[in-house]
Amino acid sequence: MIKIALITIGDEICIGQIVNTNAAFLAWEMTKLGCDVWHHSTIKDGKEVLQKELDKLIPGSDVIIISGGLGPTHDDMTKPALAEYFDDILVFHEESFQTIKEIFSRRNLEISERNRQQAMLPESCTPLKNEVGTAPGMLFNIDGKYIFSLPGVPAELKHITNHSVIPFINKIIDDKKSDINIYKVIQTAGIAESNLADLIGSLDFLDGASLAFLPNYRGVRLRIGVNAIDKNEGNKKIEKIENHIYQKAGKYIISSSDENTVEKAAKLLIEQGKTVAVAESCTAGMLGVALTDVSGSSAYFIGGMQTYSNEAKINQLKVKKDTIIKFGAVSEQTALEMARNIRNIFNSDFGISITGIAGPTGGSKEKPVGTVWIGLSSKDRTYAKHFNFGKIRSINRERSVASAIYMLLKELM
Amino acid sequence: MIKIALITIGDEICIGQIVNTNAAFLAWEMTKLGCDVWHHSTIKDGKEVLQKELDKLIPGSDVIIISGGLGPTHDDMTKPALAEYFDDILVFHEESFQTIKEIFSRRNLEISERNRQQAMLPESCTPLKNEVGTAPGMLFNIDGKYIFSLPGVPAELKHITNHSVIPFINKIIDDKKSDINIYKVIQTAGIAESNLADLIGSLDFLDGASLAFLPNYRGVRLRIGVNAIDKNEGNKKIEKIENHIYQKAGKYIISSSDENTVEKAAKLLIEQGKTVAVAESCTAGMLGVALTDVSGSSAYFIGGMQTYSNEAKINQLKVKKDTIIKFGAVSEQTALEMARNIRNIFNSDFGISITGIAGPTGGSKEKPVGTVWIGLSSKDRTYAKHFNFGKIRSINRERSVASAIYMLLKELM
Repeated sequence: MIKIALITIGDEICIGQIVNTNAAFLAWEMTKLGCDVWHHSTIKDGKEVLQKELDKLIPGSDVIIISGGLGPTHDDMTKPALAEYFDDILVFHEESFQTIKEIFSRRNLEISERNRQQAMLPESCTPLKNEVGTAPGMLFNIDGKYIFSLPGVPAELKHITNHSVIPFINKIIDDKKSDINIYKVIQTAGIAESNLADLIGSLDFLDGASLAFLPNYRGVRLRIGVNAIDKNEGNKKIEKIENHIYQKAGKYIISSSDENTVEKAAKLLIEQGKTVAVAESCTAGMLGVALTDVSGSSAYFIGGMQTYSNEAKINQLKVKKDTIIKFGAVSEQTALEMARNIRNIFNSDFGISITGIAGPTGGSKEKPVGTVWIGLSSKDRTYAKHFNFGKIRSINRERSVASAIYMLLKELM
Repeated sequence: MIKIALITIGDEICIGQIVNTNAAFLAWEMTKLGCDVWHHSTIKDGKEVLQKELDKLIPGSDVIIISGGLGPTHDDMTKPALAEYFDDILVFHEESFQTIKEIFSRRNLEISERNRQQAMLPESCTPLKNEVGTAPGMLFNIDGKYIFSLPGVPAELKHITNHSVIPFINKIIDDKKSDINIYKVIQTAGIAESNLADLIGSLDFLDGASLAFLPNYRGVRLRIGVNAIDKNEGNKKIEKIENHIYQKAGKYIISSSDENTVEKAAKLLIEQGKTVAVAESCTAGMLGVALTDVSGSSAYFIGGMQTYSNEAKINQLKVKKDTIIKFGAVSEQTALEMARNIRNIFNSDFGISITGIAGPTGGSKEKPVGTVWIGLSSKDRTYAKHFNFGKIRSINRERSVASAIYMLLKELM
């Protein structure tokens, strides 16, 4: 098993000003390859603190992935720290400089001496091409241990991980004939965690494997984990466990992969040749964004209206003024008209509407903050469902979108 | 200065299946108190791994905050690990059991033996009341160092942090007359990180303070950090540094707080009594979402149209069919018509349009993936700007929104 430790560098992460999404991304990508990610550290910018962390983590690891500290300003210390640690010198790397120049010319920006400095790299490293930013990645091989250094900007880190780190780790696993961990995620929807656990019942069938329950707004994911000598053996073990879960809880499983509800809905819409239009009030466009997160979404997403104000609902979406006066903008009746009208106006197969009180203000005793009505209209029927997602604006909007997509998915399945 | 290290426990965080928001929350709360959060670790569930981590982190820390591993199942090992580490025994804590019983009765659930076990605590700890879940927090005092152990469920962790941890740390700072760190964030926009660094120039004026550059799509934030004997001295030091930065780069500073471009635009729109409508193609609603991230946005955001397809642009947004045929959906002419039309249709003060090729497909030689036109229409003028944001769909959409908001902000300022 390849043991991996992550080191995230950056004052802003250490002091808590931003959340460490890079560590989660890297850990999950390495986990999917079969590696054992045993430790994450977050440390501040600085030479000595990185060197000490390497002293601590190298002994227990085959691979270390460092992120951050490669930018153009004075507090970016990863390169000098590594050069010193590996007793190396910085040299100019022409190919990396060409890539940096291309990026600047594409953005019509003038290149500065600071950016030229970003092409200075430790002599012993293998540079890893960064096509989306100005900091090349680096790979060091020290006594059979591999140390990656990647930029902290998430898009750049992802790019280099996908293009350089993952293929390299895959090769190590093959070369060493290392045993691997395999995980598989099954996505469920429409059932609570405890009820799902009851439905699955006794865990004796796991036979040394692991099963984790991971609830979020879009449903409960089940994570099966097994250890195996190779993918073939691992997949057989997983298949056995998966079959058992299907027998017990099959009707709540929307996908036997990490595919989420949007990806599943997108696939079904394309297969069925159906189209969608949206009418959004409190979510102001978030459902449209979610439905187009998937490339190729123009095959099914026609468009929609962000009818945030009552005027927009009445004048553009043609909701009856009487409906809003009598029942309110957040009501079953308004949600129904919104869904029906957007389907007609955009001439789509499905119309979905969201109208709610996202908060923190605007609630009343009858309609507290968190009250949301979601409407769905198709050729066959138009209906609306009532939800209460609680007091927090951002969670409200997220859950509204998740529920709307789940309603669409049920319609498609 | 109180030095704090965080230890997050949990397989699902270590393998990267969820993002470690607890660490960011704890770090930022402790930072705001003036403490130095110097290290975060994430480790898997297990007794030995926690004990080893304590060995590593206790020497450099005054306070350690552990989160996770306090649940009722077999893999929750924090309590036995700590009892063993501190050579202690678990004893039944009546008061904690009463709190657990109250929670179960409030939820109409029957209490199980597993939950009774959650009231068994190491004898030497001070239990910390958890009113929102079944795992009490714990505080140990070992040779003048303080070790907190908190549940990993975010709502429970936050509850105990706010009610027990923060007051306790504040008291230590007072008692020890400890020096503190103070931070202030200044938001800039419209200038790249390296150019901003050049503009500010020599950093001699910092005189021992720190200055960090934090770029994101919405601009570069500058974070000033100073060390001081108290808030009064700290604020004076910050003011001096802030004045210097204003002199050097004042015209790019949009706010002398952590306020971002959206918050600034929202404030100006409300002050000026102006309204906005949006016409979004490739962003499919993302600009509407960004403009309504702020509570109170109904004062200025009327709504918009997500005209993803050409039909929607022509039929609903009334873009001339000829314009699209002659110049294409991604063109200056289309962006201009979209911005002008949405302003007229929604009768708003500003109309903003975004039309682009988000990718990964749909590009051509003349209009590669990443080509985006953003239009802005007001009573006085209508114009559009051309951008190229590169090949990655998500980045494209994020940067399109950020640029649109910046165009609006410049119009307002």
